[in-house]
Amino acid sequence: MRIGVDAMGGDSPLTKPIAGAVQAANDFGIDIVLYGDESQIRGVLKQHRFNPVKVDVVHCTEVVEMHESPALALRQKKQSSIRIALNDLQSGEVSAMISAGNTGAVMATAKFVLKVIEGIERPAIATLMPSILRNQPFVLLDIGANTDCKPLYLVQFAVMGDAYSRLLQHLDEPRIGLLNIGEESGKGDSVVRDTYPLLEQSTLKFVGNVEGKAMYKVAADVIVCDGFVGNMTLKVAEGTFDLVRNVIKQEVSRSWLSKLGYLGMRGAFQALKDRADYTEVGGAPLLGVNGTVIICHGNSTPRTLRNAIRHAHECAQLKLNDLIAREVSDNLEVMRSARELEEAAS
Amino acid sequence: MRIGVDAMGGDSPLTKPIAGAVQAANDFGIDIVLYGDESQIRGVLKQHRFNPVKVDVVHCTEVVEMHESPALALRQKKQSSIRIALNDLQSGEVSAMISAGNTGAVMATAKFVLKVIEGIERPAIATLMPSILRNQPFVLLDIGANTDCKPLYLVQFAVMGDAYSRLLQHLDEPRIGLLNIGEESGKGDSVVRDTYPLLEQSTLKFVGNVEGKAMYKVAADVIVCDGFVGNMTLKVAEGTFDLVRNVIKQEVSRSWLSKLGYLGMRGAFQALKDRADYTEVGGAPLLGVNGTVIICHGNSTPRTLRNAIRHAHECAQLKLNDLIAREVSDNLEVMRSARELEEAAS
Repeated sequence: MRIGVDAMGGDSPLTKPIAGAVQAANDFGIDIVLYGDESQIRGVLKQHRFNPVKVDVVHCTEVVEMHESPALALRQKKQSSIRIALNDLQSGEVSAMISAGNTGAVMATAKFVLKVIEGIERPAIATLMPSILRNQPFVLLDIGANTDCKPLYLVQFAVMGDAYSRLLQHLDEPRIGLLNIGEESGKGDSVVRDTYPLLEQSTLKFVGNVEGKAMYKVAADVIVCDGFVGNMTLKVAEGTFDLVRNVIKQEVSRSWLSKLGYLGMRGAFQALKDRADYTEVGGAPLLGVNGTVIICHGNSTPRTLRNAIRHAHECAQLKLNDLIAREVSDNLEVMRSARELEEAAS
Repeated sequence: MRIGVDAMGGDSPLTKPIAGAVQAANDFGIDIVLYGDESQIRGVLKQHRFNPVKVDVVHCTEVVEMHESPALALRQKKQSSIRIALNDLQSGEVSAMISAGNTGAVMATAKFVLKVIEGIERPAIATLMPSILRNQPFVLLDIGANTDCKPLYLVQFAVMGDAYSRLLQHLDEPRIGLLNIGEESGKGDSVVRDTYPLLEQSTLKFVGNVEGKAMYKVAADVIVCDGFVGNMTLKVAEGTFDLVRNVIKQEVSRSWLSKLGYLGMRGAFQALKDRADYTEVGGAPLLGVNGTVIICHGNSTPRTLRNAIRHAHECAQLKLNDLIAREVSDNLEVMRSARELEEAAS
């Protein structure tokens, strides 16, 4: 099993992806295929020590820039590292692909090249979120692939999140929650209100609405929402962490006692940072396409990328997409209800 | 100018609202009218010292419970403290009204009794949010009055937020932002995408999309969003603060050094708590109805309620609603565009 790595993606192309890939090969014995400009990749590889059998290179002549239009990249850059890696994933040359490059381009190209799993309309991006319980994160999806969602999509996100949680979090029966602004079933906007009864009707262990405060108490193991709300949730959470860090820094600089206190508490702050940080988790899976694709932040460190490669390897090895397909076919009835609801409304 | 206070609202009816009202009368010399069961109110008032000329009581025979249906409360409880206080606001007996009671019932009853300001479709709830800048909060609205919004509503929220910021934050030309998941104009769901050009066309100083992280850096003075996203933003922020407190507490309990450090940093943590806390601000204004209504959390302390009364007094004295009406008439053209857009889409 070989994992494809986009060597040209991210804010530090070549250096960071290659460093992460070499670490994954050395630390976990994972076989890597690097996609990008071969001579540049070989140049960077010279700075690393690794077993050359473990790291392959596929030359690609084009690069998708970070802020390029995903649609244009898909149409015009057929020799990009993103495209060639996904072609190889589709043909089985590699078993998974990770990229810290242009997220929109990875999504659009993955959907085009790999196609979606039968019964799934829209792929979604999932992430692990920290909670007040040590070592018990929860799964949040969609965090940005789909801004305008129908209830049917949210049901499909729930199915995909359930499969992910069963295999990757080793939960027998993950509790599925619907991100909402109140606990009662009538709460929220029209999309979540219509999604609620569908999730009740599904084979999933639906535990109802979960609020933005309760999610951190792991009121559910998998929490679904549309990509607009999910991305907002993620960014507000990140922003609030930054705010806390900032205010503490401001206050600490105002008194000697606080400065001493800060020194004593460094361990606690480090623990907080670790908890807030997704670096150890390693990337966000794009669920719902026919193939394992892990998307990383543009500013990911080599360590994150190493972990993302392990994460990709695990998803492929556990055959996550097979379980998603099985769960989809277990829930055809609910999806039919959702489609009827849509048609009745339009 | 007299301010009406719902004495029966909140998790601690009578005790807290009355304590807050007495503080407002004593500290700011504000004239108060308490609405609720007169004999119970008189009983609680006996425990306080205040100038009796400053505090009046209007007897109401009914109480809206915290989790009662707002629609039923509106239809069936015409003698409730919420309803009578709003009737008196409508007739000019009082100049503003505050309640820590059933938020849905206050909104529905206020809309019914006071009607909306001409040109405004939907009232919105605004709040002040903390930022990394000391003493420079920003205004966020809507935080929960309207879960399904059209672009037209968001434009109206912007107009109302602008007026609020001019008068209450004393800004000459508040920067208006649209809460979104990206900075570029094409980002977001269909509602915010359609709102963007309308805000550009308005008389407001529109500074574009603002992300959930940038809002804390005060990228705009007033940030608009629909009530679903706004309420989620608020609760995720609160949840993240709780998470931080929780993790720090867990970590501090694990080491003596951390415990000592914590003692040294108490001042900094108190400052953080103050910054995160809206207690000092005092309630959230319901903007867009013909009258000044301030909504408080059910668990508000007497001090919050005192400040909410001052806040209500200030909004009424500054004639906030007159400015909203003027700004609405300055932006009739944009609202016409928004309505045309809607009709074209339907």
